Amino acid sequence: MDRIDESMSETLEEIVAGERAYRHEGEMTSFTEANEEDQEQVGISVVGAEGSIAQAGSAERRFPLESVSKALTLALALEDVGPGVLFERVGMEPSGDPYHSIATLEEGEVGVPSNPMINAGAIVATAMIRARDGEERFGRLLDFFRLLCGNPELDYNREMFEAEDKDLNRALFYYMRNHDVVQGGEEDLLVPYLKQTSIEMNCRELARIAAVLANGGKDPESGERRISEETVRIVLTLMLTTGMYDQSGRYAVEVGVPSKSGVSGAILAVVPERMGIGVIGPALNDHGNSVAGLRMLKQFSQRWRLGMFN
Amino acid sequence: MDRIDESMSETLEEIVAGERAYRHEGEMTSFTEANEEDQEQVGISVVGAEGSIAQAGSAERRFPLESVSKALTLALALEDVGPGVLFERVGMEPSGDPYHSIATLEEGEVGVPSNPMINAGAIVATAMIRARDGEERFGRLLDFFRLLCGNPELDYNREMFEAEDKDLNRALFYYMRNHDVVQGGEEDLLVPYLKQTSIEMNCRELARIAAVLANGGKDPESGERRISEETVRIVLTLMLTTGMYDQSGRYAVEVGVPSKSGVSGAILAVVPERMGIGVIGPALNDHGNSVAGLRMLKQFSQRWRLGMFN
Amino acid sequence: MDRIDESMSETLEEIVAGERAYRHEGEMTSFTEANEEDQEQVGISVVGAEGSIAQAGSAERRFPLESVSKALTLALALEDVGPGVLFERVGMEPSGDPYHSIATLEEGEVGVPSNPMINAGAIVATAMIRARDGEERFGRLLDFFRLLCGNPELDYNREMFEAEDKDLNRALFYYMRNHDVVQGGEEDLLVPYLKQTSIEMNCRELARIAAVLANGGKDPESGERRISEETVRIVLTLMLTTGMYDQSGRYAVEVGVPSKSGVSGAILAVVPERMGIGVIGPALNDHGNSVAGLRMLKQFSQRWRLGMFN
Amino acid sequence: MDRIDESMSETLEEIVAGERAYRHEGEMTSFTEANEEDQEQVGISVVGAEGSIAQAGSAERRFPLESVSKALTLALALEDVGPGVLFERVGMEPSGDPYHSIATLEEGEVGVPSNPMINAGAIVATAMIRARDGEERFGRLLDFFRLLCGNPELDYNREMFEAEDKDLNRALFYYMRNHDVVQGGEEDLLVPYLKQTSIEMNCRELARIAAVLANGGKDPESGERRISEETVRIVLTLMLTTGMYDQSGRYAVEVGVPSKSGVSGAILAVVPERMGIGVIGPALNDHGNSVAGLRMLKQFSQRWRLGMFN
Repeated sequence: MDRIDESMSETLEEIVAGERAYRHEGEMTSFTEANEEDQEQVGISVVGAEGSIAQAGSAERRFPLESVSKALTLALALEDVGPGVLFERVGMEPSGDPYHSIATLEEGEVGVPSNPMINAGAIVATAMIRARDGEERFGRLLDFFRLLCGNPELDYNREMFEAEDKDLNRALFYYMRNHDVVQGGEEDLLVPYLKQTSIEMNCRELARIAAVLANGGKDPESGERRISEETVRIVLTLMLTTGMYDQSGRYAVEVGVPSKSGVSGAILAVVPERMGIGVIGPALNDHGNSVAGLRMLKQFSQRWRLGMFN
Repeated sequence: MDRIDESMSETLEEIVAGERAYRHEGEMTSFTEANEEDQEQVGISVVGAEGSIAQAGSAERRFPLESVSKALTLALALEDVGPGVLFERVGMEPSGDPYHSIATLEEGEVGVPSNPMINAGAIVATAMIRARDGEERFGRLLDFFRLLCGNPELDYNREMFEAEDKDLNRALFYYMRNHDVVQGGEEDLLVPYLKQTSIEMNCRELARIAAVLANGGKDPESGERRISEETVRIVLTLMLTTGMYDQSGRYAVEVGVPSKSGVSGAILAVVPERMGIGVIGPALNDHGNSVAGLRMLKQFSQRWRLGMFN
Repeated sequence: MDRIDESMSETLEEIVAGERAYRHEGEMTSFTEANEEDQEQVGISVVGAEGSIAQAGSAERRFPLESVSKALTLALALEDVGPGVLFERVGMEPSGDPYHSIATLEEGEVGVPSNPMINAGAIVATAMIRARDGEERFGRLLDFFRLLCGNPELDYNREMFEAEDKDLNRALFYYMRNHDVVQGGEEDLLVPYLKQTSIEMNCRELARIAAVLANGGKDPESGERRISEETVRIVLTLMLTTGMYDQSGRYAVEVGVPSKSGVSGAILAVVPERMGIGVIGPALNDHGNSVAGLRMLKQFSQRWRLGMFN
Repeated sequence: MDRIDESMSETLEEIVAGERAYRHEGEMTSFTEANEEDQEQVGISVVGAEGSIAQAGSAERRFPLESVSKALTLALALEDVGPGVLFERVGMEPSGDPYHSIATLEEGEVGVPSNPMINAGAIVATAMIRARDGEERFGRLLDFFRLLCGNPELDYNREMFEAEDKDLNRALFYYMRNHDVVQGGEEDLLVPYLKQTSIEMNCRELARIAAVLANGGKDPESGERRISEETVRIVLTLMLTTGMYDQSGRYAVEVGVPSKSGVSGAILAVVPERMGIGVIGPALNDHGNSVAGLRMLKQFSQRWRLGMFN
């Protein structure tokens, strides 16, 4: 793992300052308060060896994880049941369709989602987590997220969870249940999926989790193992091939770092054996990725040669 | 309307007798008791002027309507809200996809079903029927069906309704609700849709309803108007273009009579200004249409020149 | 067949006059000279018993048939090889896709077009017409069209044929040849298909051909048989279910008359046992149908109750 | 780059010996002579620092490149016009569809292929290579391939090229030309694409080319630059995300090495900064990938920890 020092702080400040010029690009979504002030709230954190850290901009501002949680849920599901069992019910291939697509479930093996980074696939991963009921299932997820980021106070946003329109995910859930891909009720399987997307973090915590993945599954400070090597390898590979919605291919070419984005404008990015990165930039492009986030990570990757094949 | 007499009875007996030779073709489904005896239970009824009737085979045997009910639900929805309101929320085009397809909802105007003869479209039609709640909505449907067939005892099969797997239709329902195509809860909208598919009839009652449609909406016995002329015209047209699942085009060429089939093996067929026909033949082909029913109607149409363009 | 007299002329004049108010709706296409004058050039002809005729507007103006020719090519192919052979290589179902779609060829039986009214299906029908080479094949088509409309001078527009972009139809042709649905070269199969779409007619000739179909295949003046009854029945049915592109369903409900439209703004409409209609209105809607043509036929059908189920 | 020595030869011998047990799995294709003897002809070559080499099995047997050539054509096109120009006409995203799909061209930006590793995308890449005509275009490709593998005698199989069914690729070509994605004739653009797929190599030459890519674009023996760093980075990334047909995602998880396969059973695999690998195993699975090739590369990657995230 790299040690993060002063020189990186300066780089991050420059990158964030540069972003302010573009603050009116992209669309604000309902996941964020839609005012101009918010749109400027871009931030970035980087965590390296022994928890060394640098950050710039609104790195302490809290936001819901949205789809970023899919990468972590996948990790816990893999730890619980292993790839053999999990990948009988969800594929490993990019879908070529938007993350919310239901049509994609009718292609190939009917009812089986293409991969765990689209909504349907993440519902399957959630359903595989060992628990007696939905409460225990979400509790285990929350504990896992807390352990990874080192914040025992981490919680989900109840108001947001209550207010969210759940019908699209209900449709995906019942379609898959109809094909026996999941078994159980809304409370047990769908509610824990929805709650996790409302878990709130800041860039620092996001970067801390990314650093665990970058460190092969071990906590960068304590050195304790949090995730198995095999799980880390699978999660990073799927982040690389499917983590950035239907821009994953372009992002792999231009940034080249395993990443997962969410429609809150958050991105978790992992540079294996070097560092973890957390980014927020609330305005989104047409694919659901953070406009500022993409640009900051591209600059950062090029300047520090972080890409896979550099 | 034609007067149905002895000569037609003989024709029907011959046609039914001929079918017995093919009794092992096609697949029995869970909608019927799957034994060999059942598979032989083909029947046909024809109702003409002043309720004159001829029938052959198992014409008194009761079966659930399944998708046949979609044509009648469409009629009641049109009577309640008119085509202007209804066709804002459901299309009039053949979909080229199976009746249970959910992918089709992502094409064209997202969430809007192609036509009222596929499941999603029939859920929309059910939702448009005026009622305070699901109980009243189903009550109005049942009363309408009873009035049309002249049997005030007509009812749905409670066991079948309870036992049915509802998840696919739930998926369709929530997907459309997500896109504001329907508004309301499962109890109010989905349950009355599901119950109507479990309403049980026999061929005679089916033919009686078909005769109302053949008679321009007036009861063939009493002459009382049951359905408006405009509604009859629209229902017959949609039966012709979309009533036989994804075999509707071929059926229009080979039989040429507005019809609606169900996966119980039932078919309701209307020969405008001439007669109504009800058919049962429980074994189905790959498209979900009755094997015996298709063959009997084709023979009958050719022998009596019933087709649209004959 | 109806006898067409003075009263109908007045109706047609009114309908055409009414259309002039809407002359700026819709899009002009490259198939027509795009100036305002042209856009006003709407016309309609009606031919009935013994060739009695009424017409209004630009009924003598010539235009290319474009897709209208598909209905007539289908007729000749059916006369040549019969439905058994033809429908092994082209389906009878509406596709739910645009007429130029190539994706639709990958669905269902790969390489087999859904029906003969989309480009791919019409290429198959052309290929089935008996001839030693492309020249003879087109010659037979042209002779057939000449015979039907009674104009031995009928010809195709060479400049238009030369100038047309042929690549999309080449793609459809080679894709089908790859799947052995057609066998032969571009000159033999594709060129006659393309030439026929450039055959030029006026509304009067179009109505005359429609009258042959309305008259069960016999010339309305001489009474000589031009097309077999079976072919007429099949062609009319497919016009009804698939003749108006992906508006066929709505058109069946609102107009209810077997019709075939082309992107030149022409429509051939058949009222069985009553009359043939030819319409031109060059501005098109999003589906490729004539805006003025749709409106005129709707009015005409309602006023004279021409619809199938009226 | 790793130096390849004796210990690796033993590993390769073991791996190839293990494969013989499975020689009857998978399907032989027309691209190979279909006899049992051939099916046993599996081989593997590995090239490392300064051209050090180890190989086992039928490593000297020659086979056509088929889709393997797509990775190299992409490299030359990128060298000629740069990513800015190339990726205006072909995407970077996995398609989720088979490599020969034409339907995929109607999705997203119509006529623009998803990526350069499917047929349509490789036709676009070929078309971008600078040349006055098809002969020069293929000549430049052949020279490039010869230079990379160090065999100036390398050539394409004329018989195979002549005999191949070209209609599917013609369909893709004309569909794209219709949408102005390519401009020019079959001879200039399509023929050089088809010829390159018939270029014949053996495993040793394949591994030699892979070693150039592994070495950042420099020849492993002479150290001379053959391909720019930027082109290597882009080609490796696209091999990783899209190189193994619609198994690319699973392969990235299980093997984790940028690779490109062909329906001749060949696979070119690159372990950046370590080694190049060439594999042949003529029997294919349902996705068009070599059964033996997949298994050998998986074993080899696991034993030597070659995967990206190991």
